[in-house]
Formats: sequence, C-alpha cells, structure tokens
Amino acid sequence: MSKKLILLEHGSGGRASRSLIEELVLPAFSNPYLLPLGDGAILDPMSGRIAISTDSFVVDPIFFPGGDIGSLAVNGTVNDVAMCGATPTFLSAGLILEEGLPVDDLKKILSSMNKAAKRAGVLIVSGDTKVVPKGKADKIFINTTGIGIVPSGVDMGHHAICQGDAILLSGFMGDHGLAVMMLREGFEIASPLKSDTAPLHKLVQDCMAACRVHSLRDPTRGGGVGGALWEIARACGLGMVIQETSLPIRPQVESACDLFGLDPLFVANEGCFLAFVAKEDAKAAIRALKRNPLGRNAAIIGRVTQGNPGQVLMETRAGGTRVVTLPAGEFLPRIC
Amino acid sequence: MSKKLILLEHGSGGRASRSLIEELVLPAFSNPYLLPLGDGAILDPMSGRIAISTDSFVVDPIFFPGGDIGSLAVNGTVNDVAMCGATPTFLSAGLILEEGLPVDDLKKILSSMNKAAKRAGVLIVSGDTKVVPKGKADKIFINTTGIGIVPSGVDMGHHAICQGDAILLSGFMGDHGLAVMMLREGFEIASPLKSDTAPLHKLVQDCMAACRVHSLRDPTRGGGVGGALWEIARACGLGMVIQETSLPIRPQVESACDLFGLDPLFVANEGCFLAFVAKEDAKAAIRALKRNPLGRNAAIIGRVTQGNPGQVLMETRAGGTRVVTLPAGEFLPRIC
Repeated sequence: MSKKLILLEHGSGGRASRSLIEELVLPAFSNPYLLPLGDGAILDPMSGRIAISTDSFVVDPIFFPGGDIGSLAVNGTVNDVAMCGATPTFLSAGLILEEGLPVDDLKKILSSMNKAAKRAGVLIVSGDTKVVPKGKADKIFINTTGIGIVPSGVDMGHHAICQGDAILLSGFMGDHGLAVMMLREGFEIASPLKSDTAPLHKLVQDCMAACRVHSLRDPTRGGGVGGALWEIARACGLGMVIQETSLPIRPQVESACDLFGLDPLFVANEGCFLAFVAKEDAKAAIRALKRNPLGRNAAIIGRVTQGNPGQVLMETRAGGTRVVTLPAGEFLPRIC
Repeated sequence: MSKKLILLEHGSGGRASRSLIEELVLPAFSNPYLLPLGDGAILDPMSGRIAISTDSFVVDPIFFPGGDIGSLAVNGTVNDVAMCGATPTFLSAGLILEEGLPVDDLKKILSSMNKAAKRAGVLIVSGDTKVVPKGKADKIFINTTGIGIVPSGVDMGHHAICQGDAILLSGFMGDHGLAVMMLREGFEIASPLKSDTAPLHKLVQDCMAACRVHSLRDPTRGGGVGGALWEIARACGLGMVIQETSLPIRPQVESACDLFGLDPLFVANEGCFLAFVAKEDAKAAIRALKRNPLGRNAAIIGRVTQGNPGQVLMETRAGGTRVVTLPAGEFLPRIC
C-alpha cells in the first residue's frame, strides 16, 4: 500500500476499511484479544483495584527526534497508569485520520505503537479507526486509554503527601518540549535534542520497592514540573520549597530555553516523574532510581513544608526566593 | 462563560485549562473517582472478566434530532461493551476541541454526556481535553472507552453461533443514519426522523435472561445490518438467510432511503442490535425484547444455515434471492 493515501472510504466501515484493518492494523498489534474484531475485547479475569487513564494525542509535528505520535501515545498512557502505582496491562487505541495522510506514515506510526507497547509489556486490545475529510483534522490524532492493576496495600495520591516529604524528579527536565519546539521552529543542530518519551512503570516499581512513595506525578503538558507542583500544592494544601540549583537539566535544554524565552520549569516532559517520598527514604529512593538507566539523572529537588500552605516557592540560583505559579496564557500548544 | 469561544489556551494545561475543567467538566461529571484529578482514576476492586471497548466519535453535524455527539459517544461505547455480554460500569472521555468552538456548545454536549451516562448507569471516571488550532479539527471529536464486567458463564462471540440459530433484530433499522443524513442535506420536514441512539445493555440483559444468546452485534457504522451480517458470516464461516419482508423499518425511513438512493440494509443504527439465539428460544427472546420499550419493534429477520457458508442471502420481497455483500466505496461518512 506504499505511496497510497488514506481516503474517506478507509473509515467508512466498507471494504476499504476492512482491508486497512486487516492489512495494516491487525498485523501491527496482533494478539488473541484483538483478533476476534468484535465490538469489544474480553480480558482474562483480574482481581484487585483497576487504575484507568485516558489521553488524546495531537502532537505537531507527528514525527520528532526520539519518537513520534505513536510511541508518545503508548508511553503517555502507560505512564499515567503507572502514576497511580499500578502495573499497566492493556491499552485501547482510537485513531482519527485525516483524508490524504500517506499510508506509509500510518504504517510507521502503527509500528512505533507496537514497539512501544512491546517495550512496556502492554497489549493493545481494542481499537477504532475514523477518517475525516481533508482539512477537518491534522494528519492523525490518537487516543489511548489504559488500564492496570494497583497492587494491594498501595494507596498513593496527593492526599498521602506529608509535611517533610522529599520531592524527587526522576530525570532531566524539559527534553520533550524542547525537542518538539526546536523541530517546529526549524532549528537543525548537529546533535538534536531528543524527546525523553519512555515507559516509566518499571522505574516507578524500582522506586516503590526501595521506599515509601506517597504520591507520583508525571510533569507533562499542563505546565511541566512547575505546573505539576503548583497543582499538587493547591490540591493537598501543603507548601513546597524547591531549589533551582537542584533541578536536573541538560545544558543544551537550558540554552535552548534561553533562546526561546522559555522557563524550563514549565516545559512538558514525557520520560520523568515527580515522587513524594518520606524524608528518611529519599536517599534510598535516589539510589534505586539511579540503578535504572531511565533514572540515571534523578535528583532530590525540594521538600514539602509546613509554611506557605498551598504554595510552591523556589530558592533561586541567585540566592532569592520566588513563588512558582501557573502561568496564564498558553504554554507550547500541541506538545503531546 | 456564555457567548465565549474555546481558545487554544483552554487546552494548554495553564490557568485557562484549569478553569475550563473546574467550571465546566467537573460539575458535569462530578463523581468521587474523577474528583482527585490525578493522572488516572482508581476504581473499586472488580472480580471477573473485563470487557473493554473504544470508539472515537466524529459525527457531523454535532447536534441532530434525537441526540448529539455527546449522547452518541456515551451510548455507542456502552453498547459496544454490552455486545460482549458485559454490564458497562465505567467510561473514560477524551475530548479534542477546535479553537473557536462556542463554550455553550461544549456545555450542552457535556450535559448530554452526563445525562446519557446517568441513564446508562455508568460513571465517567477519567478524562482529557485537548484544543487544536482553528481548521485543525472540526468543532469537537470525542473518544470514549468503556469497561464492564462479563457475568461468569457468559461466553458469547461469533465462534458460538450455530447452524439453525435464529437471527433477531431488536428494533427499527436505519433511523440514526437517515436522521443525520436528512439534517446534513438540509431537509426539513414536519416530523423529522430521529436518531435511535440509546443504551442497550438492559435490553441485552432482558434477552439474555430469556434465552441462550450465542452472539450479539450492534449494526452501527461499517455497513448497518447488512454489513454486520456479512462480516459475521465471513468470521464464523456459516451461511445466513434473511427475509426482506421481515426487516423492521419505519415507512418514513424507507421513503427517505428511496429519495437518497440508499439501501436501508447498509445504513448505520445506534439503538438496536442483532442477536443470534438458539432456534427454539427465538420466540421467547422476541417476547422478552418486546416487553422493553427499546425492543418494541424486535423481529426475527432470518436464520443461520448449513448452505452458502460464509455468505448472506436475502429472500427479496419480489420472491427472488440476492447475495448481501459489503459495498465498496464509502457509506455515509462521519455518521458517528
């Protein structure tokens, strides 16, 4: 089907739809749950609490250094499930295609979803494909919804955060947002910044095995690390203090942020998470994170305080203190 | 927020996003699972096999007689889960909004989703909202993913269909497709056709309580009743014969189909299902269906045969027999 384009009839449910599903989608995701192509998939019995999370991906451009909309859609939802302390098991995938999308692009994206799902150990068990006329969508949008099992005894959430908790960040800050931004603005450099998109549930498990994790959050769209902390402080009513000098950031990301006038604190990430852990466990947690390649650059970035309730303060490099607040206006649009 | 429009910043994750979620989305769906606004929702323990189904809705126009994209998105996924023999329990909802969508339209759609969810007895527990620039989507697209529990002992699917089974249709054929089509083509008539969009899981349960159901399918997009039968015959390798005179259809739908040159057999439905039941149970099944207002027009439309394996034949009104085959080309685009 190379050099072919997606046509409206590929989404109509007729013969063309059928052949698209049978020739492209099924071979990409083939598994016994998806194969009967019924209205839904029936999974094996599960026991325990189920975590569920949904996300639609509209990133522009759809291919970028370090990933594409397909791997992002799989990892993004795997990570949202992982942030509940759950082990992600199954995903659904809903595709909305724009008429005229090259079939080869769709193939690449499906293959990338398949690879990401294999890497994360999840199965894509239910799917749906719609096609809308040219100009009524932008190439491809993907919704993924994921479910996973929460191990018994795990009760994480913003309600569990305690005064004194250490705030950890599991990796470098800003890579995803900057990689997409550089590409979008047409910057070509010798060693381009790469998106950090990656499945984080095993890193989460390493961390949970090493210490008492009170709450987790992946600082994606919605304000990156700064926005996530602002929201959590507001939700749990406790104060937070972070140190600018402790924030793990690549020098290239810092320079690129300067170039674009962006504050890296508010740039989206797709391969790191914030963890709130008991103060006395913080060092053990960092050691556990650093043993996993995805957590190599983990750092303690701050603490939960009794003062400044509901507010996040940052001790700056210059020796001052500023309030971290959710910016008005838009951040980077269509970053995921 | 009336007379206001959706802006890019409503999807960015910043202050405007936050206020959209807090002022519009949360009040519409408020429930204890959604309220913590974490990365995902944690559900109560479930035991048993879980059915999961996903669907993206891109219907045009977004408001139509009998429903709108919101009620359609809820009912559509509730029904896909019900077709697995499962009781739908939880839904996720992923919204993709086009910049410039009137906030009042979004309010109406959210309220309609909420009503549909209440009617179906499901909770919307995880959500996501993205905004793309004007011209990069068409008003609003909604993905819903649903999960439900399959009662123990239930094993339905195309593999369970037997030679001799009666083929039942639970309601009138073609209402949804024609209602959307008439509106799109600008036909205004005194008593317009209405979409049949409705949650069918209780009707399914009535049917399952009355007889041995071997397989279910809702004949939506993908060729309506004719397309669904074609696909199932192909999947199970058995033959089917249906009678044109037994097909339940409103006279107005029949006339409208004549007008547009459409075959009602291939028009999408959103409020009826096909059931394959043991021959000797067919009458009991029809009685059970007719006791529920949504099944009032249920009919036995044909049977599964030993002859013509993998093929669907229709005994026509004129006394002949024709092969029912999936049409090439597109049906009605963006019907759901």
